[in-house]
Amino acid sequence: MSVLEHPSFDNHEKILFATDEVTGLKAIIGVHSTVSGPACGGCRMWSYPNSEAALQDALRLSQGMSYKNIMADLPIGGGKSVIMKPEGPFDRKALFEAFGRAVDSLNGHYITAEDVGVSPDDMMAVRASTEHVVGLPEGKAASGDPSPVTAEGVFRGLKVCVERGLGKSDLAGVKVAIQGASGHVGTYLAGHLARAGAELFITDINQDGLERLKAEHGATIVGLDDIYSLDVDVFAPCALGSVINPDTIDRIKAKIIAGAANNQLATREMGAEVLKRGIIYAPDYVLNAGGIINVMGEIAGDFNPEWVKGKLVGLEQTLAEILDQSDREGRPSNLIADEIARQRIEEKRAAKLAKVA
Amino acid sequence: MSVLEHPSFDNHEKILFATDEVTGLKAIIGVHSTVSGPACGGCRMWSYPNSEAALQDALRLSQGMSYKNIMADLPIGGGKSVIMKPEGPFDRKALFEAFGRAVDSLNGHYITAEDVGVSPDDMMAVRASTEHVVGLPEGKAASGDPSPVTAEGVFRGLKVCVERGLGKSDLAGVKVAIQGASGHVGTYLAGHLARAGAELFITDINQDGLERLKAEHGATIVGLDDIYSLDVDVFAPCALGSVINPDTIDRIKAKIIAGAANNQLATREMGAEVLKRGIIYAPDYVLNAGGIINVMGEIAGDFNPEWVKGKLVGLEQTLAEILDQSDREGRPSNLIADEIARQRIEEKRAAKLAKVA
Repeated sequence: MSVLEHPSFDNHEKILFATDEVTGLKAIIGVHSTVSGPACGGCRMWSYPNSEAALQDALRLSQGMSYKNIMADLPIGGGKSVIMKPEGPFDRKALFEAFGRAVDSLNGHYITAEDVGVSPDDMMAVRASTEHVVGLPEGKAASGDPSPVTAEGVFRGLKVCVERGLGKSDLAGVKVAIQGASGHVGTYLAGHLARAGAELFITDINQDGLERLKAEHGATIVGLDDIYSLDVDVFAPCALGSVINPDTIDRIKAKIIAGAANNQLATREMGAEVLKRGIIYAPDYVLNAGGIINVMGEIAGDFNPEWVKGKLVGLEQTLAEILDQSDREGRPSNLIADEIARQRIEEKRAAKLAKVA
Repeated sequence: MSVLEHPSFDNHEKILFATDEVTGLKAIIGVHSTVSGPACGGCRMWSYPNSEAALQDALRLSQGMSYKNIMADLPIGGGKSVIMKPEGPFDRKALFEAFGRAVDSLNGHYITAEDVGVSPDDMMAVRASTEHVVGLPEGKAASGDPSPVTAEGVFRGLKVCVERGLGKSDLAGVKVAIQGASGHVGTYLAGHLARAGAELFITDINQDGLERLKAEHGATIVGLDDIYSLDVDVFAPCALGSVINPDTIDRIKAKIIAGAANNQLATREMGAEVLKRGIIYAPDYVLNAGGIINVMGEIAGDFNPEWVKGKLVGLEQTLAEILDQSDREGRPSNLIADEIARQRIEEKRAAKLAKVA
């Protein structure tokens, strides 16, 4: 597959393939857009079968970060990196130091952070080679665990959906099914919802976490596969991607889908299926931007909780605008979000060019 | 074709795909090795059918620059870039400025210069965006046209071959066929050879240039296709690549092939065919390193003709070592050159690592 003709290429500004023979590093850094600022997005380590599969992931994720960051109105662009996990044993610290050198070679056009398969400790190794890394466990501007902020953003957006879909200005008695309730974000979200009076139905592969939530909030534990077909008001996917798919869509009785998971729709076309069934879908990358908003404080060099709160209010407004337009035009909310994201990127690009000219 | 599994990948340290929507830039920068210093190699613009073809060219050329630069014992690594020439009209200055930004984003890991399809003026446009460019027509350390130095290197190496192949310490009466004699390097080489007493047979697609050489040096003009089968001592390809191929090899009567063209052998296997026929082949990238040696003065920041001369003497010695080893082992000179290049890169890498540890 030719790189620039790749179906997921979508006008990426840069794609860097970087290797290091000594450490066995094989990494791909996708820089989708820098029109708003340096491309920012996490680093994922995964056992890819080949660099073609790794490229596909990098392109898709990098574009996703562009859309997420522009919708959250952050002064950063979108990028993402993937490391092909070496087969057999390897020196993890040396590998991430080598990855840091690759990041550094891009001269600040890309800022990395942790993602799936990568820990804050790995980012400390990256930090030994480059300044262009955030999500660190320590340091002056360390923003710490982003999960509480992600959860707060999802909670705020979920309330927007409830007001529109159920005509209720509070969550008292609203039934919410949380998939992945024991996860970092899921646990915080459950707390917000319970305190607001919602009735919780929870599932997770981690049973211990569920028992704690049951004890604390009186939540009802359900089976992993039962979570889809519950008679609830809201389905909040906070675990895997692709959970809204042809196999699950007709089992969902909820009027609202609003959760923290990335890539909840198996395909873009599932947005139309959701709309057809009268379900309100909160586009995932709009709803779950709290994490990158939180990290942004670190990029800016100091952490300001008031600024974070202002961005979360912006998240609510953006979501409301998308849902308004979806209602008005009778078109799926995910496509409208994508259109607005692309349009905002184009406007930024035009504004930047006008300044240069 | 997956990038990291590409047959020509050869452990490239970095491959950057860079695009710019506004100018239509589509470029690939190959950084084969930086163990000796920043990767240095020219920028080629060509009408590639797709990015797969452009990648193939970038990988092959970038590796070639690594080999050339290490064999000339220069403190630079090997890299190369290719620009996919836009279809239809385009703003050339803006395109090269955008290319300059791509070069600049690599933070000095790659230094560019002109190559096929690219002019010194284009490099001035690149210079507007990055410091990491050489081969400029003006400026403090501008090294100017590298062709005379390339020609001098070829001339010196050709004499080494004559001494070994014909047992002659001078060129008086030695018959040399120059392919591409009207070109920049060919013209200078013809001058050197004529002044040393050689008898010249010349061809080129540019007839005007040939007439001048005939008038000046008494050279004999021959047809484009007749150049191969002349009864001469030396065949000097100074035009196209791949001129030593299954169609031409049996027509060549010369005992020595020594010229300035890049990639003279159509395939690596042609080296064995040349050897089998008792012909001495001077590996092209060893012989034609004068140009990059000249440019190196510019990278270093000031231009020192004495240093250049020293490197040209080194070129003679390296060539002699390769031919010695080829004689001793009865193996093709091109393969021996490749082996020495790879070995030198590995030694540099090991030395660098030892310093870090």
